[in-house]
Amino acid sequence: MKRTLGTCYYPEHWSTDIWESDATRMAEAGLTWVRIGEFSWSRLEPTPGQLCWNWLDQAIEVLGSRGLKVVLGTPTATPPRWMAERHPDMFAVNQFGQKRGFGSRRHYCFSHEGYFAESQRITRLMAERYGANPHVAAWQTDNEYGCHDTVISYSDAAGRAFQSWLRTAFDDDIEALNAAWGNVFWSMEYRDFTEIGLPNLTVTEPNPAHVLAFKRFSSDQVIAFNRAQVEIIKEHSAAPISHNFMGRVTDFDHFKLGADLEISTWDSYPLGFLEDRAGASAAEQRAFSQQGDPDFQALHHDLYRAVGRGRWWVMEQQPGPVNWAPYNPSPLPGMVRLWTWEAFAHGAEAVCYFRWRQAPFAQEQMHAGMVRPDHKDAPAIIEARQVAEELRDAPDLQPSQAPVAILFDYDADWAWSTQPHGAGLSYFGLILDHYKALRRLGVTIDILPAETRDFSGYRLILAPGLMHMPQDLKQALSESDAEILVGPRSGARDAHFNIPTSPLPPDLPGLDVTVARVESLRPDLPRPLAGGGAVMHYVEELEGSAVPLLQTDSGAAVAVRDGSMTYCGAWLDPVGMDRLLKVLGQAAGLEMRDLPVGVRTRRTATEEFWFNHNATPVETEVGLLPAAGVLRRPR
Amino acid sequence: MKRTLGTCYYPEHWSTDIWESDATRMAEAGLTWVRIGEFSWSRLEPTPGQLCWNWLDQAIEVLGSRGLKVVLGTPTATPPRWMAERHPDMFAVNQFGQKRGFGSRRHYCFSHEGYFAESQRITRLMAERYGANPHVAAWQTDNEYGCHDTVISYSDAAGRAFQSWLRTAFDDDIEALNAAWGNVFWSMEYRDFTEIGLPNLTVTEPNPAHVLAFKRFSSDQVIAFNRAQVEIIKEHSAAPISHNFMGRVTDFDHFKLGADLEISTWDSYPLGFLEDRAGASAAEQRAFSQQGDPDFQALHHDLYRAVGRGRWWVMEQQPGPVNWAPYNPSPLPGMVRLWTWEAFAHGAEAVCYFRWRQAPFAQEQMHAGMVRPDHKDAPAIIEARQVAEELRDAPDLQPSQAPVAILFDYDADWAWSTQPHGAGLSYFGLILDHYKALRRLGVTIDILPAETRDFSGYRLILAPGLMHMPQDLKQALSESDAEILVGPRSGARDAHFNIPTSPLPPDLPGLDVTVARVESLRPDLPRPLAGGGAVMHYVEELEGSAVPLLQTDSGAAVAVRDGSMTYCGAWLDPVGMDRLLKVLGQAAGLEMRDLPVGVRTRRTATEEFWFNHNATPVETEVGLLPAAGVLRRPR
Amino acid sequence: MKRTLGTCYYPEHWSTDIWESDATRMAEAGLTWVRIGEFSWSRLEPTPGQLCWNWLDQAIEVLGSRGLKVVLGTPTATPPRWMAERHPDMFAVNQFGQKRGFGSRRHYCFSHEGYFAESQRITRLMAERYGANPHVAAWQTDNEYGCHDTVISYSDAAGRAFQSWLRTAFDDDIEALNAAWGNVFWSMEYRDFTEIGLPNLTVTEPNPAHVLAFKRFSSDQVIAFNRAQVEIIKEHSAAPISHNFMGRVTDFDHFKLGADLEISTWDSYPLGFLEDRAGASAAEQRAFSQQGDPDFQALHHDLYRAVGRGRWWVMEQQPGPVNWAPYNPSPLPGMVRLWTWEAFAHGAEAVCYFRWRQAPFAQEQMHAGMVRPDHKDAPAIIEARQVAEELRDAPDLQPSQAPVAILFDYDADWAWSTQPHGAGLSYFGLILDHYKALRRLGVTIDILPAETRDFSGYRLILAPGLMHMPQDLKQALSESDAEILVGPRSGARDAHFNIPTSPLPPDLPGLDVTVARVESLRPDLPRPLAGGGAVMHYVEELEGSAVPLLQTDSGAAVAVRDGSMTYCGAWLDPVGMDRLLKVLGQAAGLEMRDLPVGVRTRRTATEEFWFNHNATPVETEVGLLPAAGVLRRPR
Ligand SMILES: [Zn+2]
Ligand SMILES: [Zn+2]
Ligand SMILES: [Zn+2]
Repeated sequence: MKRTLGTCYYPEHWSTDIWESDATRMAEAGLTWVRIGEFSWSRLEPTPGQLCWNWLDQAIEVLGSRGLKVVLGTPTATPPRWMAERHPDMFAVNQFGQKRGFGSRRHYCFSHEGYFAESQRITRLMAERYGANPHVAAWQTDNEYGCHDTVISYSDAAGRAFQSWLRTAFDDDIEALNAAWGNVFWSMEYRDFTEIGLPNLTVTEPNPAHVLAFKRFSSDQVIAFNRAQVEIIKEHSAAPISHNFMGRVTDFDHFKLGADLEISTWDSYPLGFLEDRAGASAAEQRAFSQQGDPDFQALHHDLYRAVGRGRWWVMEQQPGPVNWAPYNPSPLPGMVRLWTWEAFAHGAEAVCYFRWRQAPFAQEQMHAGMVRPDHKDAPAIIEARQVAEELRDAPDLQPSQAPVAILFDYDADWAWSTQPHGAGLSYFGLILDHYKALRRLGVTIDILPAETRDFSGYRLILAPGLMHMPQDLKQALSESDAEILVGPRSGARDAHFNIPTSPLPPDLPGLDVTVARVESLRPDLPRPLAGGGAVMHYVEELEGSAVPLLQTDSGAAVAVRDGSMTYCGAWLDPVGMDRLLKVLGQAAGLEMRDLPVGVRTRRTATEEFWFNHNATPVETEVGLLPAAGVLRRPR
Repeated sequence: MKRTLGTCYYPEHWSTDIWESDATRMAEAGLTWVRIGEFSWSRLEPTPGQLCWNWLDQAIEVLGSRGLKVVLGTPTATPPRWMAERHPDMFAVNQFGQKRGFGSRRHYCFSHEGYFAESQRITRLMAERYGANPHVAAWQTDNEYGCHDTVISYSDAAGRAFQSWLRTAFDDDIEALNAAWGNVFWSMEYRDFTEIGLPNLTVTEPNPAHVLAFKRFSSDQVIAFNRAQVEIIKEHSAAPISHNFMGRVTDFDHFKLGADLEISTWDSYPLGFLEDRAGASAAEQRAFSQQGDPDFQALHHDLYRAVGRGRWWVMEQQPGPVNWAPYNPSPLPGMVRLWTWEAFAHGAEAVCYFRWRQAPFAQEQMHAGMVRPDHKDAPAIIEARQVAEELRDAPDLQPSQAPVAILFDYDADWAWSTQPHGAGLSYFGLILDHYKALRRLGVTIDILPAETRDFSGYRLILAPGLMHMPQDLKQALSESDAEILVGPRSGARDAHFNIPTSPLPPDLPGLDVTVARVESLRPDLPRPLAGGGAVMHYVEELEGSAVPLLQTDSGAAVAVRDGSMTYCGAWLDPVGMDRLLKVLGQAAGLEMRDLPVGVRTRRTATEEFWFNHNATPVETEVGLLPAAGVLRRPR
Repeated sequence: MKRTLGTCYYPEHWSTDIWESDATRMAEAGLTWVRIGEFSWSRLEPTPGQLCWNWLDQAIEVLGSRGLKVVLGTPTATPPRWMAERHPDMFAVNQFGQKRGFGSRRHYCFSHEGYFAESQRITRLMAERYGANPHVAAWQTDNEYGCHDTVISYSDAAGRAFQSWLRTAFDDDIEALNAAWGNVFWSMEYRDFTEIGLPNLTVTEPNPAHVLAFKRFSSDQVIAFNRAQVEIIKEHSAAPISHNFMGRVTDFDHFKLGADLEISTWDSYPLGFLEDRAGASAAEQRAFSQQGDPDFQALHHDLYRAVGRGRWWVMEQQPGPVNWAPYNPSPLPGMVRLWTWEAFAHGAEAVCYFRWRQAPFAQEQMHAGMVRPDHKDAPAIIEARQVAEELRDAPDLQPSQAPVAILFDYDADWAWSTQPHGAGLSYFGLILDHYKALRRLGVTIDILPAETRDFSGYRLILAPGLMHMPQDLKQALSESDAEILVGPRSGARDAHFNIPTSPLPPDLPGLDVTVARVESLRPDLPRPLAGGGAVMHYVEELEGSAVPLLQTDSGAAVAVRDGSMTYCGAWLDPVGMDRLLKVLGQAAGLEMRDLPVGVRTRRTATEEFWFNHNATPVETEVGLLPAAGVLRRPR
């Protein structure tokens, strides 16, 4: 498969007069894909039941006739104002019990049955009309599920649906629920499922089992909402269906949702993410202000490749300054090209820039596009043209397996956020720290869902932080040929958020180690390791006969090993993590190297890529990489 | 006109026994004015319709008979408890949809028609009774409009009034509104004005055009509320009408409101403001803890002189520690005198100290007065007596025009707060930074409303940050004889918050410069200028043939010039701003000097003033200024 | 009386199979007491009116038959879910008007009459059944009144009860209330008690008199709630009644509540408190991360000894990491023993560890116990066994009076929190700073309620911060034989939160000093004292003829003295406070010493104790104290 470029376009924002010249210019820039339609409901159905297809027919035709392929989005992220008239209770409710209002986007509660039906209705109408359109080469459901904290809703509709979900989950047995949740603890026992409320506005923290169940339910509501659209589209179209996921949105299970799609896509805004969600220190934010975190996007590339079972795109690529981060600088010259090639290095089929032309109105008027509001070229289109040129001679996309894998589990993220134990701790942050460490060592990585049981082909597998770890996963890992790193906190809870007691965690086959107790540490009180590095944030007291690999300077075991199974009972700092991974890498026969700060590399089936995320040139083993430099060479 | 002093007095707080001695003591201290009545509604009308004028009759008579002139306030900032019974929905509603309650002050929604009528009723009753009273020499409407965040209300009453206001603004044409706001963006289009809600509790940010319109509407509601009182008072009284504005309250258009008044007054609390709103750094807060920001009050003096079209007072001058700031130190000895003379240096007709006697009860019991709760002299009265003495031989107040002007636009402040683009950025802050730079250079300044078109007499005019800049203003500036400094962000939006596209901003006559794109910067990442100083917070990429005056150290144009028109596409740090202003000052033939830190000077028609805001003596070109020192000399 | 140990146990959490082995193991560990029952309502009364006593009968019998004594708790902190069905409005309402929900604990409003009756009903049923049980050796009412901010409720029930409380307090005379509160200030006058609302959601701060009255009312509601249970239990049982107070919960008057109890107990969590409420600096939090603040627990020991009129326990002693602080490290080895002995050094009759076995489910699953979830010994039980062993030969508990006393007044804390005057200032913090200073000087301290009038036996009495100070207290202090230290802010308000005016505060017998005015200071602007140290946070300008003991470096009097009465008009830093206390200590003939950092000592009637709260050994005058070391020696 040839790797391709694209853009996101809103014909409804512009005079029909310029559609043709826009399309021509897109084609000339080397773009293949144009995503349209996903916010256009008020133009498709200005009043209930009065459908207006003409403009969309025409837009698709104009684009298609220039050889562009259309990704058509369902407009369900932006129900029009009249929908609020028909379904006044369709809005999500925040944790304080306040109804969220009309006037932006994503203003619906996933549990509202009336809106659910409306979303099916408009999807069916679109699928019927465009399912066979030759220019509609792919679909997108809705837009950025979960963005703006929209998975969780404390509405009455959610309350009823949650009760029903629990009734099913516990086979209509309220005593089973009481027992599973430990509701005896503070006389929280229910006599019937109808007594169960939502876990907000409680006097002190609610039962973590209650919270976790509500998060699982809320995720399932998103899956169901999406699946309903997918099923309808499939009835009318053979084109692949996608959804554009967001960065560091973990409130629903992307693997489960992705299983209903052909292609996983995501929206990559490196500079915005560095400021508002990558977890970078202020020093890192200064150093990479115009480049973005060197690993945050790569992690998502690998994650969404797994979500898409190999097929994935960047659906929205930052092309210049965005409008929504606390601070919105410009990318360094070259970064748009670097981001694009990095996505390809991680296996992307396509990279689409958001958006074609900067809109001079409404919420995103300060969001750069490929083209300026005055129709002149913006810097992004110039770098995109360069990539399009470079792609011509580049090898085709081929699937390839990495030697190293990290398990990723959305449920674990919910468990950590339900009970971080130490302020600010998160599963995602733990995974990112492990991912960064592997990247510093020049390793090519796959992300795997925690449901994986076949690990053949991997030489090193990391499974940190899986708070619930089914026995067959433990078994499959222990039986694989790879070096295995488990912990901290792995297997710390059963399926209903109870601590297993016979034996205590982690209960790993072939590894005699027990977590005797658990501490969280002040960020300003790391505990030094003998030999360099430190544990920080979270540390377990380990018992058992397994051999220590790392110890604190007072001799407490931190990481222990038996055969190819290693358990680490702490959140390690970078020095400590590098030490541990080098030991395991050597045991696994992996090639590791200490890359310069901000330099990253990845191997595919055909090529080796080097990326310099720094604002200055850096000397490397493959020569001097310029600032924002990309080096590709055949393997 | 002779400059005068006064105080704020609450006869209803004290036994009638001491009114006479209070009045005598005020007169002996050299005071001319006594403001009374503005919170006394529950004493004027203890139950609905039962009016009690006797005490107020008597109080006015006691004061008047001692030769004091009364400023009589309408009591509409504090409707009594029974009003809540008559109009249960009269309260403002906060952004979270919570009704704000009774028990303090300003507990009304400007859009509530019932309360609007009540405010007219009590104003009419007061005006009828005291309109011809010889001792009532001036009026005050209400008290500190907008204080405690009271301009914006998300009440149902506000919702209905906003719809009606929009209907008028858009000539009953909903499609015009949809087009002007770009509502197509996220399917936010309305079919009727009755569908438009208030821009709170949305899922993500609401349309900035929606927000800005709501701010303009909310400002107009304040204007209308005030105008109703003014019209009634004018029917019965020839005395001038004033309102006491607050510091850094920008939620309504003071110029528009001031146009209905004869005199603009404001309430100056330098130490409180330094802690809670001047935007000073912690180092500045330490250095000026007992003196206040050296420029914040002066800026307001100049601003409210413009609001009052030349006639302005300080209605409430801080006399000692206040009760409401995070920290409430005492003014340094001499500061009350300094503040008073500074107001006179900026053209004040009168300075009134708030309050006469510290009240030992209720919310402001820790707010100092001129007199202690035990009736002894507080430090303020001693400094006031000194000023009264000094005033005797001082020249009369004469109007005079400054050589330098800064345009100030409330609408620009709403536009910036609607979309700061970088965290913490504000128009007011930008103006204050420019004002401070001019003051460091020893320049005397006028503030002008952005509606000004006749700039004759000025040699340098600063118009930074006017996000909407009408074409005739651009023209008038370019045709004036002055050096003109425009930007950053000037002309960046049209009247409905859209980016102009043909051409892009700033579109200045005679200056070939275009803002190609815009960045906001982390506060810890200033971008150095070649030659010294830096840009910070906000910077534009400039294109065009205009000659660079300032460039970044990588050669990007930051300020460009053609003829007498300069555009600066960045928020400059103090060093950069001083560099730029010195160039322009020289071109304008202005005398500039580098004043010592904390020393400020101003020239009037007759005098030159020097003020030392420091806690230590400072050597200057006019000699050694003691701490908190004031030097006056004839021009 | 022999000093004893105990634990908190939840038989309802565990299979009946293990009750006997648990009881046996408790007895073998040397424990005497087992507290049970306080969260078990849903097991005692699974549906309304259907009582299930069997399990509790059996649990008491199993424990009792092993020689253990039971403390039986009423379960009113955790009403079951069906209670919300019967009394939908029983929930407290937060300051934003939001109803707090079911799903954790303490979800009731003290003012709700229906729930009040339910709490009496279940108490009566328990008292009837177990009042004569030979194994029930003590009672506990409810659990941790006030924890999770549960004293204050803005419910309708609270509103009605508050009106009624005020009507009584003001003898049905609304004009008396208006006058006492100064309601004329902002036209806040009421015509009837039914017009008075709760002081939340006001536009700016409510009248402090209103707020303080509401705090006093809210405290009285807790007292009444508790008294109702006490009266019922007393009808059926001769066993002493206790309640387990919390750390730094000051929202109700513990002295008043304690007056209804035989024994005061409290729940001591040194590591959690260090992180979330002790007010320690980050440096102190690092230094004492695994030991807790060296004084915070001791202060509570002395306070609750006073609340219990000599009889007090630690009902819940932290045994390992807790689950609820921002960071939850393990105690250093030896700290559980140190904390236990420290309680005994301060006169505790018993120390009970919370909890017996760590629960692997629900909210507190990460809270350590004496026994691990897998039934193995946790570190705490080993240190408890050591203490049990040491107690065998230790002398009996004997009452003893300290030479130094600090007055403590809950009403003063409410007054300070109503009007801190400077951000972050609190009465509790002021007391803690004085207590710490005395402890640094090696002094043994009693806490006394502010109602104390007989001060015989004391040589130094500290009464800082008593904002309301009755005349007879001033008199009693001035007539005592002790050195007296009063201020800052003492006597600053009358009973209704007005500043006394004739004369101004502090109005102390025999001391000519007047507070002329008051300042609060930025935390980064301490004002140096001549001779060392500084004032910080809060400082008064003092007038009068009393002799200065401390002055600022500019000569302002800070502490003044006449005879044995000293007034300090400032919050002193540690150096300044040590200087002042040494002068007074010398005058009082007290032995004082400069203890090493983190080392503390206390004398009882029979013993002298030394405690090393440091993580390293420290050399002292009694020899080298190991880390977490305890030294006892006969006096
Ligand atoms: Zn076609
Ligand atoms: Zn008269
Ligand atoms: Zn028995």
